[in-house]
Amino acid sequence: MSEGPLGTTKETVRLEAFSDGVFAIAITLLVLELRVDTGRPLRDALAALWPNYLAYVAAFLTILVMWLSHHGLLLWVRRVEGSLLVANGIVLMFVALVPFPTMLVGEYGRHLDADDGRVAVAVFAGLFLAINLAFAWLWALVVRKRATVAPGLPDPEVRLTNRFLGLGLAGYAAAVGLAFVEPRASLALTLLLVAFWLWNAYRRHQMAMEAAA
Amino acid sequence: MSEGPLGTTKETVRLEAFSDGVFAIAITLLVLELRVDTGRPLRDALAALWPNYLAYVAAFLTILVMWLSHHGLLLWVRRVEGSLLVANGIVLMFVALVPFPTMLVGEYGRHLDADDGRVAVAVFAGLFLAINLAFAWLWALVVRKRATVAPGLPDPEVRLTNRFLGLGLAGYAAAVGLAFVEPRASLALTLLLVAFWLWNAYRRHQMAMEAAA
Amino acid sequence: MSEGPLGTTKETVRLEAFSDGVFAIAITLLVLELRVDTGRPLRDALAALWPNYLAYVAAFLTILVMWLSHHGLLLWVRRVEGSLLVANGIVLMFVALVPFPTMLVGEYGRHLDADDGRVAVAVFAGLFLAINLAFAWLWALVVRKRATVAPGLPDPEVRLTNRFLGLGLAGYAAAVGLAFVEPRASLALTLLLVAFWLWNAYRRHQMAMEAAA
Amino acid sequence: MSEGPLGTTKETVRLEAFSDGVFAIAITLLVLELRVDTGRPLRDALAALWPNYLAYVAAFLTILVMWLSHHGLLLWVRRVEGSLLVANGIVLMFVALVPFPTMLVGEYGRHLDADDGRVAVAVFAGLFLAINLAFAWLWALVVRKRATVAPGLPDPEVRLTNRFLGLGLAGYAAAVGLAFVEPRASLALTLLLVAFWLWNAYRRHQMAMEAAA
Repeated sequence: MSEGPLGTTKETVRLEAFSDGVFAIAITLLVLELRVDTGRPLRDALAALWPNYLAYVAAFLTILVMWLSHHGLLLWVRRVEGSLLVANGIVLMFVALVPFPTMLVGEYGRHLDADDGRVAVAVFAGLFLAINLAFAWLWALVVRKRATVAPGLPDPEVRLTNRFLGLGLAGYAAAVGLAFVEPRASLALTLLLVAFWLWNAYRRHQMAMEAAA
Repeated sequence: MSEGPLGTTKETVRLEAFSDGVFAIAITLLVLELRVDTGRPLRDALAALWPNYLAYVAAFLTILVMWLSHHGLLLWVRRVEGSLLVANGIVLMFVALVPFPTMLVGEYGRHLDADDGRVAVAVFAGLFLAINLAFAWLWALVVRKRATVAPGLPDPEVRLTNRFLGLGLAGYAAAVGLAFVEPRASLALTLLLVAFWLWNAYRRHQMAMEAAA
Repeated sequence: MSEGPLGTTKETVRLEAFSDGVFAIAITLLVLELRVDTGRPLRDALAALWPNYLAYVAAFLTILVMWLSHHGLLLWVRRVEGSLLVANGIVLMFVALVPFPTMLVGEYGRHLDADDGRVAVAVFAGLFLAINLAFAWLWALVVRKRATVAPGLPDPEVRLTNRFLGLGLAGYAAAVGLAFVEPRASLALTLLLVAFWLWNAYRRHQMAMEAAA
Repeated sequence: MSEGPLGTTKETVRLEAFSDGVFAIAITLLVLELRVDTGRPLRDALAALWPNYLAYVAAFLTILVMWLSHHGLLLWVRRVEGSLLVANGIVLMFVALVPFPTMLVGEYGRHLDADDGRVAVAVFAGLFLAINLAFAWLWALVVRKRATVAPGLPDPEVRLTNRFLGLGLAGYAAAVGLAFVEPRASLALTLLLVAFWLWNAYRRHQMAMEAAA
């Protein structure tokens, strides 16, 4: 623990602690959206919740992956600039919203061919797009002030992250558009993107560890 | 980590951890107040939630700014006096209440010209005023016991914070009064104050970092 | 951060982090029990919530004081024995329950002369009694294994805490009994006890800091 | 706090902080499933909640024990591999679900002889089985990469944990099957398993501390 007033490890630690808190709470609140219809046999009521389970898994893994990315980004940050605090706050504002569209997909996911189902899926993918946009902004700030904020950040890391962020933005934008045409494909794309990020987080983590070894 | 029983870094760390927890949870619980009316098309139900979105953004950013201020204050604190624990507890008691008036504005914000709408907006601004009053008390305690509690706290910092706290108290008091006359202007003032604090937090953070560099 | 596998600072830190999490979440969930009756003017609905506000303040401050006591106790603990983990878990199990009777007092507190009101107040005071009993058990374990668990714990501290715990247990037991005779007096006693603990936490904290200075 | 980019103490600390957050939140959200039936005398309504109390205690203690096991496992981990992050995420995804079947047992536990009661108990035990399976996967990863990930992990510890994990998996699988035959016995087995783990966590903790002394 550093004794310095600002721009110190103490500060990074507290930013991470607060952000981790929001990620951990948002991810755990998802369960509150799971409610059974008590007016029918429990077996049937549980079976009817399949869109909720799907939305739960997609939302849980997406927040988890965002946490991993956030975690990976802050590992490079040595100094917390004011603009980073603001951009980080916007990322958290969208992450904390995830339980809302997750509930919408659970509620309207049984009627995917109706307009309501399409809107619910579009809002779901749309929030993930918003999270990625905010995260891209945070990332751009770190890269721009790299010399003071993240002096150890290597060029290949920057290029790789740029490419992956581009892919993510394109993927989620496609998922939003697809929601109005074929909501099933949109949901599937959302799950595919999460699986891709998870695998990607895993691989980059491994590469970084091998580089450090 | 210090080994001493009290008045140590360990203690400051735990006070921050607990406070951060309350800030992070209160900010993430705000989403639970977002509920759609399932009796109408989802598009319309989502559009009708605009007062909720406004209240969500205002409440989220206000808690975020309070967290930044709290964070900034504790960076100077080296010793946690008993009175600080109590004042900090009162700050947290009001921060943890934020989801309640946020829900009220969401619920009654569609009827801003009715008495209920005015009351909801007044309670919303009133809680922010209460948080600022409690925070001013906490700040006054730190300044008064400055020699032992926050020896590094410089005079310009004290003057600047005094001025900003005065501005905040006046602003939120005005927002409470305005709620009964022109609730739209009251809500707008609440958002303006948050934007001002955010910009202010950003600028002071930058100044402190330049001073430290 | 120690590198040792067990009985180290790292372990104490994680026990505190987990406990702090439960305290912080339980204290912040209290707000979810505040719900207005939308079927009447908001002014009246807010005024009718007075038992909820009272219960909120009493519950919030009680959890806060328990956290301060817990915090004070762990400051002396250098080694986390298995039995401490279990006793600490039971303390947390009761602390996490606080939102439930808080809601009961809010719901039934308007009818304090009816049997339901008495039961609600008795359950409220009863849970605080249970928390204090669990805490007394945790404290007894620390004192009994003092030589290895908390070598720095001085005799006067032990005597003082014993006396205060005795007072607390007697006070909350009286509040439970009183609930069936005069529920208003029982609620008042609950608030009085919290004020006493808060003042006490403040004073002991000050004494410890003066001793450390 | 290490300054290295990855595979450092800093990283383990943040993984623990995030996991602790999810454990602490899931355990504290359980209380939200306790709701009284306001249409009858409070005494009777509280008495009718006995399946909820039972489910609360079983779920709270199971999450607590899982946290202790998780805590015990991470004490040996010195390097966080990518695969560990993923497996840990799956453990957390199931832990965060616990409030859902806890609510089901509370809701349907009064009708244990009906099909709904059996299904609720089976889902309750089934989720604990899923948590144990995910935890066994996490453990297998640590053991397999032991040389780099957990160099200090001794052979007797591995054998002991293997045996206990086997017992747990068999026990929860039996509880799932039993739910359809004799749901009361299934619930009792769930409580017995938690008591066994709690006692076991206590004993192993003591052994490790004696070894360290």
